[in-house]
Amino acid sequence: MKTRIALIAIMTFAVGLAGLAFASPTVEDQIKARQSAYTFMGWNMARIRAQVIDNEVEFNADQIRAAANAIAATANSGMSAMYSPESVEGTGWKPTRLKAEFFDELDRVGEIAGNFIQQANALAEVAELGDADAIATQFRATADSCGACHRNYRASE
Amino acid sequence: MKTRIALIAIMTFAVGLAGLAFASPTVEDQIKARQSAYTFMGWNMARIRAQVIDNEVEFNADQIRAAANAIAATANSGMSAMYSPESVEGTGWKPTRLKAEFFDELDRVGEIAGNFIQQANALAEVAELGDADAIATQFRATADSCGACHRNYRASE
Repeated sequence: MKTRIALIAIMTFAVGLAGLAFASPTVEDQIKARQSAYTFMGWNMARIRAQVIDNEVEFNADQIRAAANAIAATANSGMSAMYSPESVEGTGWKPTRLKAEFFDELDRVGEIAGNFIQQANALAEVAELGDADAIATQFRATADSCGACHRNYRASE
Repeated sequence: MKTRIALIAIMTFAVGLAGLAFASPTVEDQIKARQSAYTFMGWNMARIRAQVIDNEVEFNADQIRAAANAIAATANSGMSAMYSPESVEGTGWKPTRLKAEFFDELDRVGEIAGNFIQQANALAEVAELGDADAIATQFRATADSCGACHRNYRASE
């Protein structure tokens, strides 16, 4: 079942790259949309981290469930529509940090994206059960799946 | 049932304003997070609009379902944590456009936010059924619920 989900995710990603999801967004729109999506996911990751990793904030199962659902729905939203080869250069909220290798290595990108989607879905599932330790474990796996793309395809600031 | 959902949404909003969802985000973080969340929702609204209102892009039920889920999960993510009275001034990706009245009229804000959440949830539900006309109708109701806040609490650019 897990394998099937990953395969579908990769296929969705590949299809998305072939045909943009809506009519002619500009490169600026695409970059701004993906910077927004990642910032929004980062905000929600930080909320979960504060409760189950850093223990700075009291554990609140409802807040974690909402944050994890937001991350998973964003991951599954068809983010490939935010990427076109032209968007390797340009400015959304700030200049893009996407490396040119991204478009030369789409098979590998698809695998990394597929794994990220799978980990985000698993985080939403485990958040539903409300066990802080299990959420912490899956939080780390999800953060690592984000990092796989950052390490390979995001330039340092 | 609809009334019950709206009431819970308003309560969640009010509770969120009282206690931030994670430890000490800066005003800049809050403004950047909300600008990101609204931009991400706007991107997904545009995808749905292109398919069921403007008919610029061929109808794709899977894409619409994914976009509507992303909007609903964002609406339900606990966005009140992105607002503190201090954040009425400041710069995230750009200077905030939030009007000061927002914090003077929290009951009304709660009603508007509750209605927005309800309409976004209804859009996700109708997207699940895949009927383009029904999606178009609920898209308009959702867009109008966004507009209620824009008209009252967002300064013109």
